[in-house]
Amino acid sequence: MLFARPLAELIAQFERLPGIGPKSAQRLAFHVLRMPEDDVRRVADAMLNAKRSLKLCELCQNVSEHEICEICNDPKRNTTQICVVAEARDITALERLNEFKGRYHVLHGLLNPMEGIGPEQLKVRELIARLAEDVEEIILATNPTVEGDTTALYLAKLIKPMGIKTTRLAHGMPVGGELDFADNATLLSALEYRREL
Amino acid sequence: MLFARPLAELIAQFERLPGIGPKSAQRLAFHVLRMPEDDVRRVADAMLNAKRSLKLCELCQNVSEHEICEICNDPKRNTTQICVVAEARDITALERLNEFKGRYHVLHGLLNPMEGIGPEQLKVRELIARLAEDVEEIILATNPTVEGDTTALYLAKLIKPMGIKTTRLAHGMPVGGELDFADNATLLSALEYRREL
Repeated sequence: MLFARPLAELIAQFERLPGIGPKSAQRLAFHVLRMPEDDVRRVADAMLNAKRSLKLCELCQNVSEHEICEICNDPKRNTTQICVVAEARDITALERLNEFKGRYHVLHGLLNPMEGIGPEQLKVRELIARLAEDVEEIILATNPTVEGDTTALYLAKLIKPMGIKTTRLAHGMPVGGELDFADNATLLSALEYRREL
Repeated sequence: MLFARPLAELIAQFERLPGIGPKSAQRLAFHVLRMPEDDVRRVADAMLNAKRSLKLCELCQNVSEHEICEICNDPKRNTTQICVVAEARDITALERLNEFKGRYHVLHGLLNPMEGIGPEQLKVRELIARLAEDVEEIILATNPTVEGDTTALYLAKLIKPMGIKTTRLAHGMPVGGELDFADNATLLSALEYRREL
Protein backbone atom coordinates (compact mmCIF):
# COMPACT_ATOMS: atom_id res chain seq x y z
CA MET A 1 0.00 0.00 0.00
CA LEU A 2 1.52 3.27 -1.11
CA PHE A 3 -0.75 5.66 0.79
CA ALA A 4 -2.37 5.59 4.20
CA ARG A 5 -5.94 4.29 3.75
CA PRO A 6 -7.91 7.55 4.19
CA LEU A 7 -5.54 9.27 1.78
CA ALA A 8 -5.87 6.48 -0.81
CA GLU A 9 -9.67 6.67 -0.45
CA LEU A 10 -9.65 10.44 -1.01
CA ILE A 11 -7.43 10.10 -4.09
CA ALA A 12 -9.78 7.42 -5.46
CA GLN A 13 -12.80 9.70 -4.93
CA PHE A 14 -11.11 12.64 -6.67
CA GLU A 15 -10.06 10.44 -9.60
CA ARG A 16 -13.72 9.66 -10.33
CA LEU A 17 -14.45 13.33 -11.03
CA PRO A 18 -14.33 14.50 -14.66
CA GLY A 19 -11.03 15.89 -15.94
CA ILE A 20 -9.09 14.76 -12.87
CA GLY A 21 -6.41 12.18 -13.59
CA PRO A 22 -4.29 10.23 -11.07
CA LYS A 23 -1.68 13.01 -10.77
CA SER A 24 -4.22 15.80 -10.18
CA ALA A 25 -6.12 13.59 -7.73
CA GLN A 26 -2.91 13.10 -5.71
CA ARG A 27 -2.10 16.80 -5.78
CA LEU A 28 -5.62 17.72 -4.68
CA ALA A 29 -5.60 15.14 -1.90
CA PHE A 30 -2.30 16.38 -0.48
CA HIS A 31 -3.63 19.92 -0.75
CA VAL A 32 -6.66 18.94 1.33
CA LEU A 33 -4.33 17.59 4.03
CA ARG A 34 -2.60 20.96 4.18
CA MET A 35 -5.84 22.98 4.29
CA PRO A 36 -7.27 24.16 7.64
CA GLU A 37 -10.08 21.81 8.69
CA ASP A 38 -12.64 24.64 8.45
CA ASP A 39 -11.78 25.19 4.80
CA VAL A 40 -12.12 21.48 4.07
CA ARG A 41 -15.52 21.50 5.74
CA ARG A 42 -16.53 24.50 3.62
CA VAL A 43 -15.81 22.61 0.38
CA ALA A 44 -17.57 19.48 1.64
CA ASP A 45 -20.61 21.50 2.77
CA ALA A 46 -20.77 23.42 -0.50
CA MET A 47 -20.95 20.12 -2.39
CA LEU A 48 -23.71 18.65 -0.25
CA ASN A 49 -25.61 21.94 -0.06
CA ALA A 50 -25.54 22.48 -3.82
CA LYS A 51 -26.64 18.91 -4.40
CA ARG A 52 -29.49 19.14 -1.90
CA SER A 53 -30.83 22.65 -2.43
CA LEU A 54 -30.76 22.95 -6.22
CA LYS A 55 -33.53 21.71 -8.48
CA LEU A 56 -34.56 22.31 -12.07
CA CYS A 57 -36.73 25.34 -12.90
CA GLU A 58 -40.20 24.03 -13.78
CA LEU A 59 -40.30 26.21 -16.88
CA CYS A 60 -36.85 26.36 -18.44
CA GLN A 61 -35.19 23.38 -16.66
CA ASN A 62 -32.23 25.54 -15.63
CA VAL A 63 -30.56 24.78 -12.29
CA SER A 64 -32.39 26.84 -9.66
CA GLU A 65 -32.92 27.29 -5.95
CA HIS A 66 -36.66 27.81 -6.46
CA GLU A 67 -39.48 26.14 -8.44
CA ILE A 68 -39.17 28.96 -11.01
CA CYS A 69 -35.66 30.30 -11.68
CA GLU A 70 -34.61 33.93 -11.44
CA ILE A 71 -34.54 34.45 -15.20
CA CYS A 72 -38.02 32.99 -15.79
CA ASN A 73 -39.28 35.01 -12.80
CA ASP A 74 -37.79 38.28 -14.07
CA PRO A 75 -40.63 40.49 -15.43
CA LYS A 76 -38.07 42.46 -17.49
CA ARG A 77 -37.26 39.44 -19.69
CA ASN A 78 -39.42 39.15 -22.77
CA THR A 79 -41.44 35.98 -23.08
CA THR A 80 -41.61 35.88 -26.85
CA GLN A 81 -38.09 34.51 -27.41
CA ILE A 82 -36.74 31.22 -26.08
CA CYS A 83 -33.09 30.36 -26.53
CA VAL A 84 -32.57 26.58 -26.45
CA VAL A 85 -29.24 25.33 -25.05
CA ALA A 86 -27.82 21.89 -24.33
CA GLU A 87 -26.54 22.51 -20.79
CA ALA A 88 -27.20 24.94 -17.95
CA ARG A 89 -23.62 26.23 -18.20
CA ASP A 90 -24.30 27.45 -21.74
CA ILE A 91 -26.68 30.02 -20.24
CA THR A 92 -23.76 31.62 -18.41
CA ALA A 93 -21.87 32.13 -21.66
CA LEU A 94 -24.87 33.87 -23.22
CA GLU A 95 -25.83 35.91 -20.14
CA ARG A 96 -22.29 37.27 -20.01
CA LEU A 97 -23.00 39.07 -23.30
CA ASN A 98 -25.82 41.01 -21.66
CA GLU A 99 -27.50 41.04 -25.06
CA PHE A 100 -30.24 38.42 -25.11
CA LYS A 101 -33.31 39.52 -23.15
CA GLY A 102 -35.59 36.52 -23.72
CA ARG A 103 -35.78 33.33 -21.72
CA TYR A 104 -33.96 30.02 -22.00
CA HIS A 105 -34.69 26.32 -22.24
CA VAL A 106 -32.13 23.73 -21.16
CA LEU A 107 -32.29 20.37 -22.98
CA HIS A 108 -29.82 18.66 -20.59
CA GLY A 109 -27.98 16.94 -23.41
CA LEU A 110 -28.06 16.47 -27.16
CA LEU A 111 -29.51 13.79 -29.40
CA ASN A 112 -27.04 10.94 -29.71
CA PRO A 113 -28.56 7.73 -31.08
CA MET A 114 -25.23 5.89 -30.68
CA GLU A 115 -25.42 6.41 -26.93
CA GLY A 116 -29.16 5.80 -26.77
CA ILE A 117 -30.07 9.44 -26.18
CA GLY A 118 -33.34 10.21 -27.98
CA PRO A 119 -35.83 13.08 -27.53
CA GLU A 120 -37.36 11.31 -24.49
CA GLN A 121 -34.04 11.55 -22.63
CA LEU A 122 -33.93 15.32 -23.21
CA LYS A 123 -36.27 18.08 -21.97
CA VAL A 124 -38.00 18.27 -25.37
CA ARG A 125 -41.53 17.58 -24.12
CA GLU A 126 -41.13 20.43 -21.61
CA LEU A 127 -40.03 22.76 -24.44
CA ILE A 128 -43.01 21.91 -26.63
CA ALA A 129 -45.34 22.49 -23.68
CA ARG A 130 -44.03 26.06 -23.38
CA LEU A 131 -44.83 26.88 -27.01
CA ALA A 132 -48.50 27.28 -26.11
CA GLU A 133 -47.49 30.63 -24.61
CA ASP A 134 -46.88 33.80 -26.64
CA VAL A 135 -43.58 32.51 -28.07
CA GLU A 136 -42.61 34.05 -31.42
CA GLU A 137 -39.05 32.82 -31.92
CA ILE A 138 -37.01 29.82 -30.88
CA ILE A 139 -33.24 30.37 -31.10
CA LEU A 140 -31.46 27.02 -31.32
CA ALA A 141 -28.11 27.63 -29.61
CA THR A 142 -26.77 24.09 -29.47
CA ASN A 143 -23.05 23.65 -30.22
CA PRO A 144 -21.98 23.43 -33.88
CA THR A 145 -21.13 19.73 -33.54
CA VAL A 146 -22.72 16.66 -35.14
CA GLU A 147 -24.96 16.16 -32.09
CA GLY A 148 -25.73 19.87 -31.80
CA ASP A 149 -26.66 20.15 -35.47
CA THR A 150 -28.76 16.98 -35.36
CA THR A 151 -30.64 18.22 -32.31
CA ALA A 152 -31.24 21.65 -33.86
CA LEU A 153 -32.56 20.09 -37.07
CA TYR A 154 -34.83 17.75 -35.13
CA LEU A 155 -36.28 20.61 -33.07
CA ALA A 156 -36.68 22.86 -36.12
CA LYS A 157 -38.74 20.17 -37.87
CA LEU A 158 -40.93 19.91 -34.79
CA ILE A 159 -41.37 23.63 -34.12
CA LYS A 160 -41.53 25.31 -37.55
CA PRO A 161 -44.83 23.62 -38.52
CA MET A 162 -46.33 25.26 -35.43
CA GLY A 163 -45.78 28.61 -37.13
CA ILE A 164 -42.98 29.72 -34.82
CA LYS A 165 -39.85 31.37 -36.25
CA THR A 166 -36.92 29.02 -35.66
CA THR A 167 -33.34 30.33 -35.90
CA ARG A 168 -29.85 28.97 -35.27
CA LEU A 169 -26.68 30.74 -34.10
CA ALA A 170 -24.50 31.75 -37.06
CA HIS A 171 -21.45 29.68 -37.95
CA GLY A 172 -18.31 31.29 -39.25
CA MET A 173 -14.88 32.63 -38.47
CA PRO A 174 -14.35 33.50 -34.81
CA VAL A 175 -13.81 37.25 -34.44
CA GLY A 176 -10.08 37.96 -34.44
CA GLY A 177 -9.34 34.49 -35.84
CA GLU A 178 -6.91 33.91 -38.71
CA LEU A 179 -7.88 32.13 -41.91
CA ASP A 180 -4.62 30.26 -41.70
CA PHE A 181 -5.57 28.63 -38.42
CA ALA A 182 -9.27 28.01 -39.04
CA ASP A 183 -10.30 24.38 -39.50
CA ASN A 184 -11.92 23.38 -42.77
CA ALA A 185 -15.44 23.01 -41.41
CA THR A 186 -15.39 26.51 -39.92
CA LEU A 187 -13.96 28.03 -43.07
CA LEU A 188 -16.54 26.21 -45.19
CA SER A 189 -19.35 27.56 -42.99
CA ALA A 190 -17.90 31.05 -43.14
CA LEU A 191 -17.88 30.86 -46.93
CA GLU A 192 -21.34 29.31 -47.23
CA TYR A 193 -22.97 31.88 -44.94
CA ARG A 194 -21.02 34.87 -46.30
CA ARG A 195 -22.86 38.18 -46.02
CA GLU A 196 -23.20 40.94 -48.56
CA LEU A 197 -21.54 44.16 -47.45
CA MET B 1 -26.05 36.80 -10.81
CA LEU B 2 -25.20 34.12 -13.32
CA PHE B 3 -25.63 31.04 -11.12
CA ALA B 4 -28.01 30.08 -8.35
CA ARG B 5 -26.31 30.93 -5.02
CA PRO B 6 -25.40 27.39 -3.82
CA LEU B 7 -23.98 26.63 -7.26
CA ALA B 8 -21.92 29.84 -7.33
CA GLU B 9 -20.62 29.01 -3.84
CA LEU B 10 -19.58 25.51 -4.94
CA ILE B 11 -17.81 26.87 -8.04
CA ALA B 12 -15.97 29.41 -5.83
CA GLN B 13 -14.84 26.65 -3.45
CA PHE B 14 -13.57 24.48 -6.31
CA GLU B 15 -11.71 27.42 -7.86
CA ARG B 16 -9.62 27.79 -4.71
CA LEU B 17 -8.16 24.29 -5.16
CA PRO B 18 -4.79 24.03 -6.93
CA GLY B 19 -4.83 23.45 -10.68
CA ILE B 20 -8.55 24.13 -10.98
CA GLY B 21 -9.43 27.17 -13.08
CA PRO B 22 -12.85 28.80 -13.55
CA LYS B 23 -13.81 26.42 -16.40
CA SER B 24 -12.87 23.24 -14.53
CA ALA B 25 -14.59 24.54 -11.40
CA GLN B 26 -17.82 25.02 -13.38
CA ARG B 27 -17.55 21.59 -14.98
CA LEU B 28 -16.90 19.94 -11.61
CA ALA B 29 -19.79 21.80 -9.97
CA PHE B 30 -22.28 20.77 -12.67
CA HIS B 31 -20.96 17.23 -12.39
CA VAL B 32 -21.67 17.25 -8.66
CA LEU B 33 -25.28 18.29 -9.39
CA ARG B 34 -25.64 15.26 -11.67
CA MET B 35 -24.07 12.80 -9.19
CA PRO B 36 -26.31 10.69 -6.90
CA GLU B 37 -26.41 12.29 -3.44
CA ASP B 38 -24.70 9.22 -1.90
CA ASP B 39 -21.71 9.67 -4.20
CA VAL B 40 -21.46 13.36 -3.31
CA ARG B 41 -21.51 12.44 0.36
CA ARG B 42 -18.76 9.88 -0.25
CA VAL B 43 -16.43 12.55 -1.69
CA ALA B 44 -17.28 15.03 1.09
CA ASP B 45 -16.72 12.37 3.77
CA ALA B 46 -13.43 11.24 2.21
CA MET B 47 -12.15 14.83 2.40
CA LEU B 48 -13.12 15.37 6.02
CA ASN B 49 -12.02 11.89 7.05
CA ALA B 50 -8.59 12.24 5.43
CA LYS B 51 -8.13 15.66 7.00
CA ARG B 52 -9.16 14.42 10.45
CA SER B 53 -7.57 10.98 10.66
CA LEU B 54 -4.19 11.59 9.09
CA LYS B 55 -1.20 12.88 11.01
CA LEU B 56 2.55 12.97 10.44
CA CYS B 57 4.66 9.95 11.39
CA GLU B 58 6.68 10.91 14.47
CA LEU B 59 9.84 9.51 12.90
CA CYS B 60 9.83 10.23 9.17
CA GLN B 61 7.09 12.95 9.03
CA ASN B 62 5.28 11.04 6.27
CA VAL B 63 1.46 11.24 6.20
CA SER B 64 0.19 8.40 8.37
CA GLU B 65 -2.87 7.01 10.16
CA HIS B 66 -0.77 6.08 13.19
CA GLU B 67 1.93 7.72 15.34
CA ILE B 68 4.53 5.67 13.47
CA CYS B 69 3.88 5.06 9.76
CA GLU B 70 3.77 1.66 8.07
CA ILE B 71 7.19 2.05 6.48
CA CYS B 72 8.95 3.06 9.71
CA ASN B 73 7.10 0.26 11.50
CA ASP B 74 8.11 -2.39 8.97
CA PRO B 75 10.84 -4.63 10.49
CA LYS B 76 11.92 -5.66 6.97
CA ARG B 77 13.09 -2.12 6.10
CA ASN B 78 16.70 -1.46 6.94
CA THR B 79 17.33 1.37 9.35
CA THR B 80 20.80 2.30 8.09
CA GLN B 81 19.63 4.27 5.04
CA ILE B 82 17.38 7.32 5.07
CA CYS B 83 16.13 8.81 1.83
CA VAL B 84 15.25 12.50 2.25
CA VAL B 85 12.41 13.85 0.08
CA ALA B 86 10.65 17.20 -0.14
CA GLU B 87 7.05 15.98 -0.10
CA ALA B 88 5.15 12.89 1.03
CA ARG B 89 4.07 12.22 -2.56
CA ASP B 90 7.72 11.77 -3.58
CA ILE B 91 7.76 8.61 -1.46
CA THR B 92 5.13 7.09 -3.75
CA ALA B 93 7.34 7.61 -6.80
CA LEU B 94 10.26 5.85 -5.09
CA GLU B 95 8.19 3.06 -3.53
CA ARG B 96 6.81 2.23 -6.95
CA LEU B 97 10.33 1.15 -7.98
CA ASN B 98 10.34 -1.51 -5.25
CA GLU B 99 14.08 -1.02 -5.07
CA PHE B 100 14.88 1.13 -2.03
CA LYS B 101 14.58 -0.81 1.21
CA GLY B 102 15.58 1.85 3.72
CA ARG B 103 13.38 4.45 5.38
CA TYR B 104 12.36 7.97 4.39
CA HIS B 105 12.33 11.47 5.80
CA VAL B 106 9.89 14.09 4.50
CA LEU B 107 11.08 17.72 4.72
CA HIS B 108 7.65 19.17 3.79
CA GLY B 109 9.13 21.74 1.47
CA LEU B 110 12.47 23.02 0.23
CA LEU B 111 14.66 25.92 1.29
CA ASN B 112 13.48 29.10 -0.40
CA PRO B 113 14.85 32.29 1.17
CA MET B 114 12.82 34.44 -1.26
CA GLU B 115 9.61 33.03 0.21
CA GLY B 116 10.94 33.05 3.75
CA ILE B 117 11.36 29.29 4.00
CA GLY B 118 14.43 28.47 6.06
CA PRO B 119 15.51 25.24 7.83
CA GLU B 120 13.16 26.04 10.75
CA GLN B 121 10.13 25.84 8.42
CA LEU B 122 11.20 22.37 7.26
CA LYS B 123 11.49 19.10 9.18
CA VAL B 124 15.28 19.44 9.41
CA ARG B 125 15.54 19.30 13.20
CA GLU B 126 13.54 16.04 13.14
CA LEU B 127 15.97 14.62 10.56
CA ILE B 128 19.07 15.51 12.59
CA ALA B 129 17.47 13.92 15.68
CA ARG B 130 17.19 10.62 13.79
CA LEU B 131 20.90 10.54 12.96
CA ALA B 132 21.69 9.40 16.51
CA GLU B 133 20.42 5.99 15.39
CA ASP B 134 22.47 3.49 13.37
CA VAL B 135 22.20 5.53 10.16
CA GLU B 136 25.04 4.97 7.68
CA GLU B 137 23.80 6.79 4.58
CA ILE B 138 21.56 9.75 3.82
CA ILE B 139 20.28 9.82 0.24
CA LEU B 140 19.22 13.35 -0.68
CA ALA B 141 16.38 12.85 -3.17
CA THR B 142 15.15 16.42 -3.54
CA ASN B 143 14.22 17.57 -7.05
CA PRO B 144 17.02 18.77 -9.35
CA THR B 145 15.79 22.38 -9.15
CA VAL B 146 17.41 25.46 -7.62
CA GLU B 147 15.53 24.92 -4.35
CA GLY B 148 16.16 21.16 -4.39
CA ASP B 149 19.88 21.62 -5.01
CA THR B 150 20.18 24.34 -2.36
CA THR B 151 18.43 22.17 0.19
CA ALA B 152 20.59 19.14 -0.64
CA LEU B 153 23.79 21.19 -0.32
CA TYR B 154 22.63 22.66 2.99
CA LEU B 155 21.82 19.22 4.42
CA ALA B 156 25.06 17.70 3.12
CA LYS B 157 27.09 20.38 4.93
CA LEU B 158 25.19 19.60 8.10
CA ILE B 159 25.35 15.82 7.90
CA LYS B 160 28.74 14.95 6.37
CA PRO B 161 30.72 16.32 9.34
CA MET B 162 28.82 13.79 11.48
CA GLY B 163 30.67 11.04 9.58
CA ILE B 164 27.57 9.86 7.70
CA LYS B 165 27.80 9.07 3.99
CA THR B 166 25.69 11.62 2.10
CA THR B 167 24.62 10.94 -1.49
CA ARG B 168 22.39 12.61 -4.07
CA LEU B 169 20.28 11.11 -6.88
CA ALA B 170 22.19 11.12 -10.18
CA HIS B 171 21.38 13.78 -12.78
CA GLY B 172 21.50 12.99 -16.48
CA MET B 173 19.57 11.99 -19.56
CA PRO B 174 16.21 10.39 -18.83
CA VAL B 175 16.23 6.77 -20.04
CA GLY B 176 14.74 6.64 -23.53
CA GLY B 177 15.19 10.39 -23.93
CA GLU B 178 16.62 11.99 -27.04
CA LEU B 179 19.62 14.33 -27.00
CA ASP B 180 17.77 16.54 -29.40
CA PHE B 181 14.98 17.20 -26.92
CA ALA B 182 17.01 17.41 -23.71
CA ASP B 183 17.29 20.87 -22.16
CA ASN B 184 20.76 22.34 -21.73
CA ALA B 185 20.96 21.88 -17.96
CA THR B 186 20.12 18.17 -18.25
CA LEU B 187 22.58 17.65 -21.08
CA LEU B 188 25.27 19.51 -19.15
CA SER B 189 24.69 17.28 -16.11
CA ALA B 190 24.75 14.18 -18.28
CA LEU B 191 28.09 15.26 -19.71
CA GLU B 192 29.58 16.31 -16.36
CA TYR B 193 28.61 13.04 -14.62
CA ARG B 194 29.48 10.80 -17.59
CA ARG B 195 30.52 7.28 -16.59
CA GLU B 196 33.37 5.16 -17.88
CA LEU B 197 32.16 2.03 -19.66
